[in-house]
Amino acid sequence: MISDPYGLSRVVGEKGVLPQRARKLEPSLPCREAELLIDVESLNIDAASFKQIKDDVGAEPAKIAARIQEIVRERGKMQNPVTGSGGMLLGRVKEIGPKHPARGTLKVGDRIATLVSLSLTPLVIEEIKAVHVEIDRVDIRGHAILFASGIYAKLPSDMPDTLALAALDVCGAPALVARYVKPGMTVAVLGAGKSGALCLAQARKDLKGQGKVLALDISEKALAALSGIGLCDTALKVDATQAVDVMEAVSQATGGALCDLVVNCASVGNTEMASILSVKDGGTVIFFSMATSFTAAALGAEGVGKDVTMLVGNGYAPGHADLTLDLLRSEPALRKLFETRYV
Amino acid sequence: MISDPYGLSRVVGEKGVLPQRARKLEPSLPCREAELLIDVESLNIDAASFKQIKDDVGAEPAKIAARIQEIVRERGKMQNPVTGSGGMLLGRVKEIGPKHPARGTLKVGDRIATLVSLSLTPLVIEEIKAVHVEIDRVDIRGHAILFASGIYAKLPSDMPDTLALAALDVCGAPALVARYVKPGMTVAVLGAGKSGALCLAQARKDLKGQGKVLALDISEKALAALSGIGLCDTALKVDATQAVDVMEAVSQATGGALCDLVVNCASVGNTEMASILSVKDGGTVIFFSMATSFTAAALGAEGVGKDVTMLVGNGYAPGHADLTLDLLRSEPALRKLFETRYV
Ligand SMILES: NC(=O)c1ccc[n+]([C@@H]2O[C@H](COP(=O)([O-])OP(=O)(O)OC[C@H]3O[C@@H](n4cnc5c(N)ncnc54)[C@H](OP(=O)(O)O)[C@@H]3O)[C@@H](O)[C@H]2O)c1
Ligand SMILES: NC(=O)c1ccc[n+]([C@@H]2O[C@H](COP(=O)([O-])OP(=O)(O)OC[C@H]3O[C@@H](n4cnc5c(N)ncnc54)[C@H](OP(=O)(O)O)[C@@H]3O)[C@@H](O)[C@H]2O)c1
Repeated sequence: MISDPYGLSRVVGEKGVLPQRARKLEPSLPCREAELLIDVESLNIDAASFKQIKDDVGAEPAKIAARIQEIVRERGKMQNPVTGSGGMLLGRVKEIGPKHPARGTLKVGDRIATLVSLSLTPLVIEEIKAVHVEIDRVDIRGHAILFASGIYAKLPSDMPDTLALAALDVCGAPALVARYVKPGMTVAVLGAGKSGALCLAQARKDLKGQGKVLALDISEKALAALSGIGLCDTALKVDATQAVDVMEAVSQATGGALCDLVVNCASVGNTEMASILSVKDGGTVIFFSMATSFTAAALGAEGVGKDVTMLVGNGYAPGHADLTLDLLRSEPALRKLFETRYV
Repeated sequence: MISDPYGLSRVVGEKGVLPQRARKLEPSLPCREAELLIDVESLNIDAASFKQIKDDVGAEPAKIAARIQEIVRERGKMQNPVTGSGGMLLGRVKEIGPKHPARGTLKVGDRIATLVSLSLTPLVIEEIKAVHVEIDRVDIRGHAILFASGIYAKLPSDMPDTLALAALDVCGAPALVARYVKPGMTVAVLGAGKSGALCLAQARKDLKGQGKVLALDISEKALAALSGIGLCDTALKVDATQAVDVMEAVSQATGGALCDLVVNCASVGNTEMASILSVKDGGTVIFFSMATSFTAAALGAEGVGKDVTMLVGNGYAPGHADLTLDLLRSEPALRKLFETRYV
């Protein structure tokens, strides 16, 4: 077993607490044997955190920079003490500990993005070089440490960072879809936004021409964009909070059969029942929406006596970053959609 | 397809709203073609609801009875307007609509318990015969309606109602465990209370002598009771909110291998990470605890880069009631444990 894969030894003064929960991390060098050292280029601060800082100190770059430096100096990580959230970073590999699993895959100098939150990443800022207020980004000089369990993606050289990051942000979703879609299935994606588009493309790929893909969204525009590039067989304009309406629309579109798999990528709450009622008995719902309520799903399925397998959308699956970037490469229309909508 | 399996036609004045969410149901006779009519004997009011009523009107049976009658008269169902919760009922089958799925399985006169909430069950109370304040139960004369999708259990004649109801209350848990346990697995159950004991017994059964069952609980007493009757191979006294401690205890008990399946039946919050860190890469966690936070599970697994399948514990699986009652029958020691602890 790798020693300290979760970075417990970097937590200051709180035994048995994971880095995410810790008040303070010890970010100093040297890099330990199961760690990866990163020469940081920029921090993408979580939107809620950046807004809180801006609301607090004002929009002036120097003030924002000072506040960020203060947080990182105090906590050894960029975790906003008010929102609790972090963000992610871009940089180059500087050193790979002999027991870090990336040894053999990455090499010094590779550009990577971390896919774990800054809220658990030891960080030292030597200098803030620029604050890009409109995109929540700060360019810095400094170093960060990735634990053996910390996920990352190698940044591709065939697309701009912004495009890669937009897709990597939600790459767990298509990767999980790939595990559950089999040819012949009827698959519905509820919420046809950024993650929804990737899920639709992945589902269509895994169906290998046998089966059916439904896109459901409240936005006519989002649906038109997806239909226009052939990402779905049927587009249904529905409000996902109206469970019965959604069920009826799906039932009609599937000749009463309903779906084998429903993927919930909606950005609003109260959409559990629409997902549950839209699957066949014995079907599966994958909940990616962070607005999912555990009890609404558990009690909802029981209340309607539905034998449905309900999965919590894990943001991580091995190979999820490559799978997602490959999806953009193999589907030029999807890439274009991303370039126009999400970059 | 069965017409109106969810009882939408019983909702008064709100189109497309499910009975659970509806302000008012129409509980009048006759029984419709996809419905089951029940001659009600007693209502087991949800604990939170009963307490609210008691706190509001006082502990006097007549006052509690009056308040319950008032709610049911107004809403056509026993859904406490403050807590939103219901409970379940016991009664005898009075009529089975020609399109209700129980036709063929049940017969008029059978005693059943509903396993869907009173909060979605059309109900008429003609008379309240007794209020049992200490056990949140009221005996009534009246009728209730079960929709085609509404789950129920036939009450067994070889055990007291109280015992059957205690087990049926959590019967979804062992039924789901039965789907995931295969011989050779290492299975941990976090929270060795009522549902935990059933899950342990079911897991042990499905391992067929190959594999290992771990019981984890904060209570020495609960663990001793389970170990005493051979329901687990290893009992670990841990606080499930302390993720790292739990992981270390499980790691030690499994020679560093961790578990294939973790079943979370703890009654407290903040136990997601303990579950996630205790499974192997590629393993599965079933969350039954209603204190589970969706985001803590989803972001937690991502934060530690764990490839874990996470399931929302559906309270319903076909055959769950019979499976659970059979478990009590085939395991006299488990039955005894239930009789002493949960009846
Ligand atoms: N667990 C994970 O790893 C993971 C991975 C990917 C995504 N997610 C989560 O999934 C959710 C979606 O993310 P995203 O980036 O795809 O967001 P997004 O691009 O904003 O897409 C959400 C879509 O849902 C639509 N929508 C909003 N209200 C709706 C309603 N009432 N009925 C039907 N559709 C509605 C939106 O339409 P409008 O544009 O008209 O509002 C939009 O098209 C977020 O909660 C995200 O955190 C989690
Ligand atoms: N989705 C479903 O259909 C379904 C089915 C079954 C159960 N459930 C849910 O599962 C949960 C458990 O139900 P239950 O009836 O089994 O409850 P229970 O009998 O109270 O069992 C819970 C157990 O957890 C233990 N516990 C409490 N705090 C703990 C901690 N910090 N660390 C470790 N163990 C701890 C309790 O010990 P103490 O006795 O010492 O407090 C108790 O033994 C509830 O939330 C229930 O609603 C859901």
